[in-house]
Amino acid sequence: MQLVPSAQDVLVLAQLVDLVRTGRATTRPDLEAATGLGRKVVTQRIKDGLDLGVLAEGDLAPSQGGRAPRTVRFRAEAGLILAACLGASECDAALTTLDGQVLGSLHLEVDIADGPASVLERVDTLFTELLDRHGRGRDLWGVGVGVPGPVDFTTGRIVAPPIMPGWDDFDVRAWFRNRYDAPIWVDNDVNLMALAEWHRGTPREGRDLLYVKVGTGIGSGLVSGGRLHRGDTGAAGDIGHVRVTDDESVVCRCGRTGCLEAAAGGWALARDLTRSARAGASPFLAERLAERGRLAPEHIGQAVASGDPVARAAIVGAARTVGGAVANIVNFANPGAVVLGGGVLRTGDEFFRIFADTVRTRAVELATRRLAVRTSSLDFTEGVTGAALLAVERLFRRDALPLWIAHGSPAGSAIRLQNASVA
Amino acid sequence: MQLVPSAQDVLVLAQLVDLVRTGRATTRPDLEAATGLGRKVVTQRIKDGLDLGVLAEGDLAPSQGGRAPRTVRFRAEAGLILAACLGASECDAALTTLDGQVLGSLHLEVDIADGPASVLERVDTLFTELLDRHGRGRDLWGVGVGVPGPVDFTTGRIVAPPIMPGWDDFDVRAWFRNRYDAPIWVDNDVNLMALAEWHRGTPREGRDLLYVKVGTGIGSGLVSGGRLHRGDTGAAGDIGHVRVTDDESVVCRCGRTGCLEAAAGGWALARDLTRSARAGASPFLAERLAERGRLAPEHIGQAVASGDPVARAAIVGAARTVGGAVANIVNFANPGAVVLGGGVLRTGDEFFRIFADTVRTRAVELATRRLAVRTSSLDFTEGVTGAALLAVERLFRRDALPLWIAHGSPAGSAIRLQNASVA
Repeated sequence: MQLVPSAQDVLVLAQLVDLVRTGRATTRPDLEAATGLGRKVVTQRIKDGLDLGVLAEGDLAPSQGGRAPRTVRFRAEAGLILAACLGASECDAALTTLDGQVLGSLHLEVDIADGPASVLERVDTLFTELLDRHGRGRDLWGVGVGVPGPVDFTTGRIVAPPIMPGWDDFDVRAWFRNRYDAPIWVDNDVNLMALAEWHRGTPREGRDLLYVKVGTGIGSGLVSGGRLHRGDTGAAGDIGHVRVTDDESVVCRCGRTGCLEAAAGGWALARDLTRSARAGASPFLAERLAERGRLAPEHIGQAVASGDPVARAAIVGAARTVGGAVANIVNFANPGAVVLGGGVLRTGDEFFRIFADTVRTRAVELATRRLAVRTSSLDFTEGVTGAALLAVERLFRRDALPLWIAHGSPAGSAIRLQNASVA
Repeated sequence: MQLVPSAQDVLVLAQLVDLVRTGRATTRPDLEAATGLGRKVVTQRIKDGLDLGVLAEGDLAPSQGGRAPRTVRFRAEAGLILAACLGASECDAALTTLDGQVLGSLHLEVDIADGPASVLERVDTLFTELLDRHGRGRDLWGVGVGVPGPVDFTTGRIVAPPIMPGWDDFDVRAWFRNRYDAPIWVDNDVNLMALAEWHRGTPREGRDLLYVKVGTGIGSGLVSGGRLHRGDTGAAGDIGHVRVTDDESVVCRCGRTGCLEAAAGGWALARDLTRSARAGASPFLAERLAERGRLAPEHIGQAVASGDPVARAAIVGAARTVGGAVANIVNFANPGAVVLGGGVLRTGDEFFRIFADTVRTRAVELATRRLAVRTSSLDFTEGVTGAALLAVERLFRRDALPLWIAHGSPAGSAIRLQNASVA
């Protein structure tokens, strides 16, 4: 059948779908009560949702005295989300259903410094392959993309990224919009990791969450009241270049001295330990370096485990430095949970142990009395999971509703955003 | 007439009132389009709003081709808000209309250390006087209260306040609930100041705002996406006891050393300059001290203006210390505006000049490229203004709607929250 409902009808449908999707109301009487809408309107819009395939009839709810009402359920399989998260040297991509369940995923090594045209072309190749393999017969409803730099979230443009040469002011949304007939959202990678841990991490605290990524670089993301705090220029949480020491010998890749990254980031650790290995201070690391040509996080972890004092001192120093910087943030932001993620986890448990201890010791008591400090629980898939969840959340959010239209298309076809530039 | 509408009707009414109040929709056709509700329902609920006195018929809107629709306007004068903000040594109270316009205000010196029973009794006396003088014939719809310590916003309880002896775990909401038949909201004073500057400050940036109060103590508040970031234990922004120096001689009133307050707060400045005056280092301040028995911010300002090097060095040092701490927060939170408020403004322009310069110099370029740094524009009324606006915002927020009921009372009577404990 053909459906060409009014914008107002779609607004109501989207509102009902969001209530059903999040479990806040799942029967017609509950949907009426939650929205203030009349029975006839609710019944009609649910019928539209059934026709579109985004809703399905569910089980009977417990009776409240009279006839037991039938529930309505969300059909997450009605549409597809494409998600990608770019790092400095790799990319994860996934195809998911409308609740972020992964249908298929792919991983690729890329060099972000190759610039947007080359890198996004490779992301697009992953997307095409995922759609070919797992997307047959279903429509794309949204695209979420993470990048390792600040993003103006309302426009989808990159803002002065320190480690993404050639990307400044690049419009990632426009690039994808020319290829996909679905709304695109672009965000900073660590923001997406924070969002994923808030929604999917274990245990799920449901409280404000600070995610700290210590990988090649260092960044953080804050979820406040269930929402990402992005900041005015998309730079919130961007702590890699905060000054942590007056030592002028700590030279950062950004050109300045004393940056957190330069003192404790993965690239700085690898640089310093490579020097130590070459200088003969660590036979263990010198051997790994000779074998592989470069030091990976795993090698540093093996060195620590083997009792190598140079590697251990480097890890302890870095963990204390990052922990001290994060303690300051905890004092200000008072999160309920601090979650450590990133490649540093591959060096073993030592970094986290000292990091957690430093955060607890250095932050004020009022900010730590209920604070949970844990490692990330999504096994390095936080970024791409967050990219999918960003698209899911945005598709069904109430403040996006006025922009929904239903395409006049067969049942099962997508509900899409009229204006994909909505923030 | 008697009105005993269903909870569902009230939900719709409150939703319509909020759209009208905020100017998002002011004609019946626009209200239908914005809500997805039918003409009959909108017409009926507007009639309820007119009967209750919270809405009134307005002017004609421009015609869209057919007959010009009549607008509906919000009658802020239909109800009253009581607002109070407690500081360490004073209290501001105000009676306002439902849009926060002040009908009357009172100021009182209190010592927060007298404990809750004594202090709140005095606040209540102010409230009674304000209602007697300006509130005749109108109903109270809400109460907003600010306190100089961390608050568990969902319960209205004080949480381990550093400068409020006897207040720990005190239930401020319950205390007022026994006296007023209206919902009560309690929040940290600096949070409310941030909220007031975000809504009413000049210029209104509309961007994320960090308010920094430097008075007797030092605190801050962050408004992110129009919402206060309160933190997990209500301690977000509580930066007075962040460690800023390893100097063990900087002893804080909290018992530790090196706290921001102890290095740069008003009480520390007064302490240090009193010592200097007594030691003969500042004849100017020694004279003021002899006259008044203690040093006030104005005296320090006069000393700086007169060229007193000791007073100037103290102000410059404090401004640099606070500016450095705030630069770190700016790096993390990336606000669009930093607003300086509190008693330090009474010492003259020097503090702000150096503070602003330090924030800009010490924070990273990406976080300062669009940053506005200004002084507060509400002339020391930020706290009580914020307390009123908190109640206003909460009364009409969509997530509070399911709890609204309309009392079965004559037109003009209040719509109230069924359960005042809602956050």
